Amino acid sequence: MPHDGRTRVPFNELRQVLEQCLRPRGFESRRAKRCARIFAENDLVGVASHGLNRFPRFVEWIERGWIDPAQTPELAASFGSLERWDGRLGPGPLNARDCMSRAMEIAEEHGVGIVALRNTNHWMRAGTYAWQAADAGFAGICFTNTEPNLPPWGSSQPKLGNNPVAVSIPRSNGRHVLSDGAMSQFSYGALETAARRKERLPVQGGFAKTGELTNDPEEILQSKRALPIGFWKGAGLSLVIDLLAATLSAGQATCDLGTQEEEYGVSQVFVALARSLMDASALERVERTLLDLHTASTVSEVPVRYPGERLLQIREQNLRDGIPVDKAVWEDVQHLASISPTR
Amino acid sequence: MPHDGRTRVPFNELRQVLEQCLRPRGFESRRAKRCARIFAENDLVGVASHGLNRFPRFVEWIERGWIDPAQTPELAASFGSLERWDGRLGPGPLNARDCMSRAMEIAEEHGVGIVALRNTNHWMRAGTYAWQAADAGFAGICFTNTEPNLPPWGSSQPKLGNNPVAVSIPRSNGRHVLSDGAMSQFSYGALETAARRKERLPVQGGFAKTGELTNDPEEILQSKRALPIGFWKGAGLSLVIDLLAATLSAGQATCDLGTQEEEYGVSQVFVALARSLMDASALERVERTLLDLHTASTVSEVPVRYPGERLLQIREQNLRDGIPVDKAVWEDVQHLASISPTR
Repeated sequence: MPHDGRTRVPFNELRQVLEQCLRPRGFESRRAKRCARIFAENDLVGVASHGLNRFPRFVEWIERGWIDPAQTPELAASFGSLERWDGRLGPGPLNARDCMSRAMEIAEEHGVGIVALRNTNHWMRAGTYAWQAADAGFAGICFTNTEPNLPPWGSSQPKLGNNPVAVSIPRSNGRHVLSDGAMSQFSYGALETAARRKERLPVQGGFAKTGELTNDPEEILQSKRALPIGFWKGAGLSLVIDLLAATLSAGQATCDLGTQEEEYGVSQVFVALARSLMDASALERVERTLLDLHTASTVSEVPVRYPGERLLQIREQNLRDGIPVDKAVWEDVQHLASISPTR
Repeated sequence: MPHDGRTRVPFNELRQVLEQCLRPRGFESRRAKRCARIFAENDLVGVASHGLNRFPRFVEWIERGWIDPAQTPELAASFGSLERWDGRLGPGPLNARDCMSRAMEIAEEHGVGIVALRNTNHWMRAGTYAWQAADAGFAGICFTNTEPNLPPWGSSQPKLGNNPVAVSIPRSNGRHVLSDGAMSQFSYGALETAARRKERLPVQGGFAKTGELTNDPEEILQSKRALPIGFWKGAGLSLVIDLLAATLSAGQATCDLGTQEEEYGVSQVFVALARSLMDASALERVERTLLDLHTASTVSEVPVRYPGERLLQIREQNLRDGIPVDKAVWEDVQHLASISPTR
């Protein structure tokens, strides 16, 4: 049962209301449907921070002109199995879907397909596009840079992005393996949620202003010193992810995004690895590994799971019982769906 | 000045002694020279655990037949810009060098080159091969799986490998960016070194037998519960790295390696990204990012550095002053160089 302030909404209702918001705001009918589905599916798998809760900001940015709903990616240069595309500030989720589709087409021809996309916008959830590849039988990898929101090791100044990376491995039963995470231990969304609920983080998530590690989300929000995964290791990974995204796409790096008023025009990379590699023997190897993983003895009540396993459980529950949504946000979005855009 | 038990040896002397060890042990002259150089260069950049200190074990494994010094990788299948090679249990460092070279050849033709290598052996230091790509003007990525040595999140049983990943970004001045690290916070080599010196780890590195996080290396060695970077996040990343390496190469997964007496026949992946992508504008973007990083204010005496920066400083010092080596190991290896192999 969702806690106070939340209610459950059927997936199709959520999807349709989001679609109604997008249609009069510059999205042609098919694109409104596709984009609404991506947002609603993020809620469906339990990532409300990049679904409904982020949707009002998405609409606001369309109104401000940072997202142009009519734009689609355009080929900028081809290097064979790697292509550079320009996202022309189109909607991040649609640009990302199109680019992973293109990466899969290239992979069908060359074994590997990479699309490096510049001038695009926040894609919401990295896992969406890696899952898209896995659902089509490809292993998929994608990563994005972000505005500066994470300090390098030894500093309190945000110079790095938290630069999420997703990796998927397809399974023939559709219950794909999906690792999806940012280079910070906790997202700012997660810190804000925990602070609002006056909860401690399960592990240390950053530094207090005094320089001590802490699991108090409020102290981390004040210091702006979130912790990279693996301390200096995640800080280093974050930098090379940014450099790969910006150089491969010839797009903006995190330091360029830091000079803007808000985060738009980011750089992303989509990798698809040929379906033909994922033959019966490869798929069997994946099953053997997951079986072995599930035999691991547990040390607490937390079960041992492969990455992506919990998401499937949440998805099944939410399909059955409806998606838990924040009542206030849901009312705002229903209102948005009922009015004409302001521009 | 190296602490007690260590002495300094010039790079060329170290390289030559290692070469003398390899020549009578099945390495033809040019391969002995190349392999010795890789080990010596790992010491040169301060990674003795995967240089001289690991060399006696490398020689022992040749004698046991787990490493076959005469074998070279053989093409097993081509998918266009991705090729599968069989390492035929040849020496890991030479197999890895050859496969990154081949990945670069493919990248010249297709924009991206990937070589997935199975049945190979420990490559010593991941960074060696990513650096090789950067030195030739390519961005490089490589990763390997390992025997099970890291528990999944929620377990105390090692089921995952620590699966190192290296990523390089070339710079025109040769001072490349290099992120190189395992998915565990500290390697077993680092834990053993700290335990021997009775030092605490700088941050928590695993669990004590009681289930509490600790920075006491001795307690972690006893519990065998090293900490993945970013807790559950690194555990998830480790699994997908293993699955990518094993499926792309059609080689052994970590769970297969766990059924063997020792770790041999591992799976690795080498990615090269076309030199033509790294044009003047891309290189300028890298410099802009590093300049911006270096302006970050520091919170302690630790300077803010890009990944790979410290390694260059160590390299310069060691070239000038000689490489610090463990006296006992150095004597052992000098002895190995003076005697004929036992088989």
